[in-house]
Amino acid sequence: MTIAPTPADKFSFGLWTIGWQGRDQFGDAVRPELDVIGAVHKLAEAGVWGVTLHDDDLIPFGSDAATRDKIISDFTEATKSAGLVVEMVTTNLFSPPVFKDGGFTSNDRSIRRFALRKVLRNVDLAAQLGATVFVMWGGREGAEYDGSKDIHAALNRYREGVDLVAGYIKEQGYDLKIALEPKPNEPRGDILLPTVGHALAFINELEHADIVGLNPETGHEQMAGLNFTHAIAQAMWSGKLFHIDLNGQRSIKFDQDLCFGHGDLLSSFFTVDLIENGFPGGGPRYNGARHFDYKPSRTEGEDGVWASVKANMQTYLLLKERALAFRSDPEVQAALEASGVLELAESTLAAGETTADLLADTASFEDFDVAAAGERNFGFVHLNQLAVEHAIGAR
Amino acid sequence: MTIAPTPADKFSFGLWTIGWQGRDQFGDAVRPELDVIGAVHKLAEAGVWGVTLHDDDLIPFGSDAATRDKIISDFTEATKSAGLVVEMVTTNLFSPPVFKDGGFTSNDRSIRRFALRKVLRNVDLAAQLGATVFVMWGGREGAEYDGSKDIHAALNRYREGVDLVAGYIKEQGYDLKIALEPKPNEPRGDILLPTVGHALAFINELEHADIVGLNPETGHEQMAGLNFTHAIAQAMWSGKLFHIDLNGQRSIKFDQDLCFGHGDLLSSFFTVDLIENGFPGGGPRYNGARHFDYKPSRTEGEDGVWASVKANMQTYLLLKERALAFRSDPEVQAALEASGVLELAESTLAAGETTADLLADTASFEDFDVAAAGERNFGFVHLNQLAVEHAIGAR
Amino acid sequence: MTIAPTPADKFSFGLWTIGWQGRDQFGDAVRPELDVIGAVHKLAEAGVWGVTLHDDDLIPFGSDAATRDKIISDFTEATKSAGLVVEMVTTNLFSPPVFKDGGFTSNDRSIRRFALRKVLRNVDLAAQLGATVFVMWGGREGAEYDGSKDIHAALNRYREGVDLVAGYIKEQGYDLKIALEPKPNEPRGDILLPTVGHALAFINELEHADIVGLNPETGHEQMAGLNFTHAIAQAMWSGKLFHIDLNGQRSIKFDQDLCFGHGDLLSSFFTVDLIENGFPGGGPRYNGARHFDYKPSRTEGEDGVWASVKANMQTYLLLKERALAFRSDPEVQAALEASGVLELAESTLAAGETTADLLADTASFEDFDVAAAGERNFGFVHLNQLAVEHAIGAR
Amino acid sequence: MTIAPTPADKFSFGLWTIGWQGRDQFGDAVRPELDVIGAVHKLAEAGVWGVTLHDDDLIPFGSDAATRDKIISDFTEATKSAGLVVEMVTTNLFSPPVFKDGGFTSNDRSIRRFALRKVLRNVDLAAQLGATVFVMWGGREGAEYDGSKDIHAALNRYREGVDLVAGYIKEQGYDLKIALEPKPNEPRGDILLPTVGHALAFINELEHADIVGLNPETGHEQMAGLNFTHAIAQAMWSGKLFHIDLNGQRSIKFDQDLCFGHGDLLSSFFTVDLIENGFPGGGPRYNGARHFDYKPSRTEGEDGVWASVKANMQTYLLLKERALAFRSDPEVQAALEASGVLELAESTLAAGETTADLLADTASFEDFDVAAAGERNFGFVHLNQLAVEHAIGAR
Repeated sequence: MTIAPTPADKFSFGLWTIGWQGRDQFGDAVRPELDVIGAVHKLAEAGVWGVTLHDDDLIPFGSDAATRDKIISDFTEATKSAGLVVEMVTTNLFSPPVFKDGGFTSNDRSIRRFALRKVLRNVDLAAQLGATVFVMWGGREGAEYDGSKDIHAALNRYREGVDLVAGYIKEQGYDLKIALEPKPNEPRGDILLPTVGHALAFINELEHADIVGLNPETGHEQMAGLNFTHAIAQAMWSGKLFHIDLNGQRSIKFDQDLCFGHGDLLSSFFTVDLIENGFPGGGPRYNGARHFDYKPSRTEGEDGVWASVKANMQTYLLLKERALAFRSDPEVQAALEASGVLELAESTLAAGETTADLLADTASFEDFDVAAAGERNFGFVHLNQLAVEHAIGAR
Repeated sequence: MTIAPTPADKFSFGLWTIGWQGRDQFGDAVRPELDVIGAVHKLAEAGVWGVTLHDDDLIPFGSDAATRDKIISDFTEATKSAGLVVEMVTTNLFSPPVFKDGGFTSNDRSIRRFALRKVLRNVDLAAQLGATVFVMWGGREGAEYDGSKDIHAALNRYREGVDLVAGYIKEQGYDLKIALEPKPNEPRGDILLPTVGHALAFINELEHADIVGLNPETGHEQMAGLNFTHAIAQAMWSGKLFHIDLNGQRSIKFDQDLCFGHGDLLSSFFTVDLIENGFPGGGPRYNGARHFDYKPSRTEGEDGVWASVKANMQTYLLLKERALAFRSDPEVQAALEASGVLELAESTLAAGETTADLLADTASFEDFDVAAAGERNFGFVHLNQLAVEHAIGAR
Repeated sequence: MTIAPTPADKFSFGLWTIGWQGRDQFGDAVRPELDVIGAVHKLAEAGVWGVTLHDDDLIPFGSDAATRDKIISDFTEATKSAGLVVEMVTTNLFSPPVFKDGGFTSNDRSIRRFALRKVLRNVDLAAQLGATVFVMWGGREGAEYDGSKDIHAALNRYREGVDLVAGYIKEQGYDLKIALEPKPNEPRGDILLPTVGHALAFINELEHADIVGLNPETGHEQMAGLNFTHAIAQAMWSGKLFHIDLNGQRSIKFDQDLCFGHGDLLSSFFTVDLIENGFPGGGPRYNGARHFDYKPSRTEGEDGVWASVKANMQTYLLLKERALAFRSDPEVQAALEASGVLELAESTLAAGETTADLLADTASFEDFDVAAAGERNFGFVHLNQLAVEHAIGAR
Repeated sequence: MTIAPTPADKFSFGLWTIGWQGRDQFGDAVRPELDVIGAVHKLAEAGVWGVTLHDDDLIPFGSDAATRDKIISDFTEATKSAGLVVEMVTTNLFSPPVFKDGGFTSNDRSIRRFALRKVLRNVDLAAQLGATVFVMWGGREGAEYDGSKDIHAALNRYREGVDLVAGYIKEQGYDLKIALEPKPNEPRGDILLPTVGHALAFINELEHADIVGLNPETGHEQMAGLNFTHAIAQAMWSGKLFHIDLNGQRSIKFDQDLCFGHGDLLSSFFTVDLIENGFPGGGPRYNGARHFDYKPSRTEGEDGVWASVKANMQTYLLLKERALAFRSDPEVQAALEASGVLELAESTLAAGETTADLLADTASFEDFDVAAAGERNFGFVHLNQLAVEHAIGAR
C-alpha cells in the first residue's frame, strides 16, 4: 500500500535534518557527520525533489575561500547529477557564539554588521545555487529578560536588516523571495516575531514587503498552542505563504521536530487538506515546496535516518489520498452544506447593500428570531467525525 | 505605605469585572447581580477614573426600548454625578446562544447580519456615553474543528464586519477608535486572531486601518506562552496600542483573569515599566486608560470584590514606584550601557551608508574578530537581578 | 464501514455529558434540560452498556425526600427496562456556591462536614443503583493563591475524607470501589492531586488504600502536557486503574472535553491499543467500563448531541480494529523485536544474580563496548511509522 | 541592602551549573571548560556552603583509573581547603550516546547493566566524598513514541535498578539517601516519572522505599504547568522531600534553568515561605540544602557566571526576609484567620467522633444553612494582596 514519492510531489529536505548528529541540550553527538554528496544521491533515489541548506551546513563556519569554492562546486555538481533542485537556502545566525544575542538585533552593533554581511554573502550563494526562496529564522533574535532588549529598537533593527537584504536582492535582480520563519521560544526565552501573526505584522512595516513572506513551521506554532492550519490559512489570506516547514510536535514543550504526522495527526490531515484542496470556498493556493524540517530521533542510526525520510513523505502522501477522498465524498459535501461552511464565503451584506440599507432591514434585527437562530444545530461534531473517519481510512 | 489612586492615574474597570457573579464552567453564581448605580459611586470613591461596559452588562439582552432608555439615562446621570468617565464600550457577541458559532464570522449569514446590527447600535451608545475606544473581542469567532470553518472566508467576513463598523464611525463623525482584543482560545478551541501579532496583521488588510488598533490583555497573550510586554511593545511599534487590559494569569491554562500582579509578577513589573517609562531608547508612548479586565475570585463575597478593585490599583502604583526607581538608578543605567541595551537604538548602517559601503567595509566581515565578539559578557543576568531587586523594593 | 457498538463493548456515558446544556464561562445555555428517561432509552438503542451520574444530575440539589425517591424510582425503572447498567456514580461537590472553596478540603469545617454527608448519602444511592465504582473528582479542592491553602492540612483533610468514605463502604458491605479523578487546574487555579501520579501517591497514604484507585481522564493529563497512555500505564502498574474517562483535548488549554479521538488522534490509538491489547510484554489488563466523559460542542443541537454519542463509540471501535491489526502484523512484530521493546521485559540482572555478581561481571562494564552500544539503531521511527500507518488504515 | 550569604544558609551549587559552557540545542559552546579547583574556591568566597556534581562533571567519561584517582584527590583537597561540603552527588546517564534510550530502562539490556555499574561506582564515590544525598535524574528514561516503550516493563526495570542501588547503599552501610528528580519532558518526548506525584507513587512500590525520596526542581514542575510549592508540600506530607533544586522558569516551554527568582517571582516567594516558615498549621520541615540547579545564560561571560551565582543567593535571602515579615505581620495573621487557613488543620470529625455520629448530627446536613455557607467571603484576594505587598517589600 506504499505510495512512491516522485519529484512532482515537490518534497524537499534540509541538509541539517538528515545531517543532525543528535547533539542536544543534554547529550553528545550520536551519529557521524553527514556525507553530503552521498546524501544528495540517496535523497534523489528516495523520490525527493529538492534539497535546502544553511550556509554552515555545507561550508564549515570560517572556511577559507578555496575550501568554500570547492565545496560549492562539488555540491552543485552532485545535485545536478542527482536531479535535485536547491529550492531554498537559509543562513545560520544562531550556532556560533558571536550570535549569542542574535544577529540582526544583537545589542552589539558590530555583530549586527557582521550578521548582515554573512547573510548578503549567503544571498549570493542562494542565487548561484538556483534557490528561489531565502528563509530567515531569527532563532537568537530575542531575550531571556525583559530588561535586556529594547523591543522598539530591536524591531527597528530587524526591519533595517530585512529591508537591506531585500533591497540587495532586488538590486542584484535575483529571483529570490525572503520567507521569515516565526518561533515563540527556544533557544531564547522569548523570540521576536514569535508567531505567524507577528511576522505578518512585521512584514507590513517593511519597505520591500512585496518580496517578503513567511515560512511557517508546524511545530513552532504548536509550541504556542496555536492551530497550524489556521496559521498558514491566515498567511495565505495575506498572500504571504512563500514556503512551509512540515514536521511533528506533541503539545507545548521543547521543539521536538518529529516527522510529519508523528505529532498531532488530525491537524496534519487538515494541513494536507488545505495545501492539496485549498479552502472550501475558494481562494489562494499554495504551490511551493513541501519541505520537511525535522530531526531524526537521537535513538536512530543511519538506517533510522533514512527510514525517517521515507516516513515524512509516506505520511504526507497517505493523508493526501485521504484528504482528496474527504472532499469528494458526497456525505461530506452534504455535511459542509448543513454546517454552513460554504455559506461563510457569501458576503454578509448583499452586493451593493449599504450600511444604511442594513440598518433599514428589519429582518436583520427588529424582526429577527434570535431564539430560533440560537437553536440551529451546526452539526460540527458530525462533520468532524467524517473527517476523522476519512483520516483513518475508514470511509 | 498605601498609595491612594487618583483619576490622574487613569484607572478604569469594566462593569462585568466587579459584576461577575462567579458563574463558571463548573459552578453556579455565588454573588447577587451588581447594583450598577451603587457600583459607579463606589468605584469613584476608590479613586477610579473610568468605567467600561458591554451593552449587555448594562442593558439586559432583549430589553425593550423604554427600559433601555431608562437604564442608559440613569447610568449616565450616575457616572456624571460620580465624576467617572465612560472611556470604553464593547459589545457582547458571545453569551447569547445565537452567537454560539460567532458573530461577524458565524457560518450563518443571518446571524452575521444580526451581529452587525447589534454592534452598530452599540457604537451609537458608545458615542452617546462619550467613550473614545470601542473594543471588539471576538471570543466566539473561531472553531473547535478545522473542518468546520473556512478560514479564508472567515477572515473575509471579519474584515467586512470591522470595516463596516469603522466606516460607520467615520460617517457618523464619532470620536471613536476600534481596538481589537486577541485571545488564543476559550471559549472556542481556536479563536481567530489569536494573538497581538495576528490582529496587527489583520488590521493591515482593512480599508479603515487608520482607526483600528489593539486592546491586548495580559492573560490572553500568556495563555499562548507569549511575553505580554513584548506584545504591547510590538503593538506600540506599529502605532496600534489603543487600549490595554491588565490582569493576572499563571502559566498556560484556562483564562484566570486574576488581579494585576497576582499572576507573573516580574512580567507585571516590566509591563508597568514600559507603560510608565517608555522604551529605553525612546519611541512611542502609551497614554490611554490603565484598564483592569479581571474577575474577583469566586471564593469572594462583596468585600472581596472591592478588595480586589483596590488590589489591582495598589499593585500597579507600587510597581510604578519601583519602575521609576529602576530607571533612575545609576547602577541600572551603567548596566544598561554595559549590556548594549542602548546601543540597539543605533542603526546598523551609519547615516548615509549604503549596502555597497557595508560590503566594502572589511572591518565588518573580513577583519572582524569573530572569536572576540563571541566572548562578550552581555551582563544580562546582572541587569535582570537589578530589576528583580528593584521590583521587590530591595534597592 | 460502520461498526455497531454492543453492550459487550462496555461503553458508558455520564448523564452530564449528553445533558450538558452548553453553559460555559462566557455563554448561556443553548440546549434544554435533558429528559433523563428518554435519554436512557436512546443510549440503550445506540448500543451503550452503561450510564453514570452525579447525584445532582439526576436529583436537583436541594430536592425534598419525596421528590428524590420518585426520581430515583423512575430512573431505576427506566434503566432496567432499557437494559442499561448504572456502572458508576459520583458526587457533585463543585457546582453549588457552598463548595466554592472545595468540599473535603474547604477551609470551612462546617462545609467539610456537609460535603462528607452529601457523599455518604450518595454512596448509599450508588449501592442502591448497583454501581461498582464511585468516582471522586475534587474539582474545587485547590487554590488560586499559594497563601490561601495550607497544603499539608489540606492533604490531611482529603485523606480523612476519603478514608471515612472508604471505611463506610466497607462497614456497609457495599460492592463499591472508589476511583479518584485527577485534574491539574480549572475551575481552581491549582487543583490538589493534579495528575495520576499525585493521586497514586496520595492513595498510598490511606488507611483503606485497597479499595481506592483511579479514574484518569484523557484531557486532564493532557492539560498538563502529560502522556495519557503513560498515565494509565503507571496506574495499571500500581494496580489502580479502576475506571477511565475517555475524551479529546487539543494541547494545553482549558478543558475541552471533546469526543474521544477528536483531540490527539495518535495518542487515542495507543490508548485503545493498551486497553485492548495490554502491554507488549504482558502485565495487568483493564477490564472496566469504556466511559466517555466529554461535552457535545455548544454549537450542536439535539441531533448533534446524539451524533457525538455515536462518534465516541465509532472512533473507539475503529481504533480498536486498527490496534488489533497493528499488534498482529508480522512486520510490526519484527520491528518491536528490532527495537528491543520486548527485551525490556527481561530483568536487568539474571535470575539469582546478585549485585556482587554484577560487579564481578567485567562484560557489563570493564569490557563493555560503550561506543558500539551507542551506535545501535533502535528503529523507533520505523516502528512509529508502522503505528501511524496502521492507525490511518493504510496497512 | 545586600545580604551576605554564609554557610549557615546551606546554599549549594552543581559543578555543571557554573561549568555550563553554553552548548545548547542550536548553538556551540561559548565559554571555556570550568577550572574546577578555582571554582571551588570562588564558591567558598561567595559564601556558598556546598558543591554537588555528576561523575562526568569532575571526571571525563572514559578516563582511566589513574587519571580518575588524581582528579578525585585534587578535588577533595580543594573542597577541604575551601571549607566546602560535597553534599550531593549524581550520575550522568544522559549525555553519552550509549544512554540515548535511557540507562535503567533502555530497551537494550546490556546498556541497563552498564548503567547500573556506572551508578554503583558513583555511589562509592559519593560516599567517599562525604555526600549524604544521591540524586537520580532519569532524563533519558522515556520515549518519543508510545509504541517504542513498554511502560509496564520499563517501570519494573526502573524499580529493579533503584532497589538494587538502594540495597547496595544499605549493604555498604553508606550514610546516603537517594533522591529521584522528576521531569516531564526534554530531552525525551515524555520522561518516565514526569512529576513529583509520579515519582512519589513509584517510590511506594520499592522494596527500599525508606531511603528513597525526592529532589524536585522548580522549573521541572512548572514545565507541566504545575505549582512547585504544592509539589514540595505534597512531598513533605509524604515525608519524602530529601533535596531541592531551585531555579527559574517562565511558563510552559523548554527547560530554561534561569536563576532562582528570575522565573515566577511570586511562586518563588511562596517556595521560600514554605521552606523557611513551614506550613501555617504546622507539620514537617525541610532542613536540607538550598541547592541551585540552573544555567548561567549563554549570553554571559565568566563575569556573568559569577554574577548569576550571587543572584540566586541574593534573591533567596531577600525573599526569606520578606517571607519572615509576612508571617509575623499581625494583619496577615488576621487575614489567615479570616480566610480559614488555620481552620483547615482542624480535623473534620471531632476527636472520637464516628461516621455514625456524623450521620446523626443534623447540624451537619439536615439543618445546615447551605445558602449562608455559600455566601462566606473567604477573603483570599485580600490575603494574596498582602503576600504580594510583602513580596515586593511594600509592607
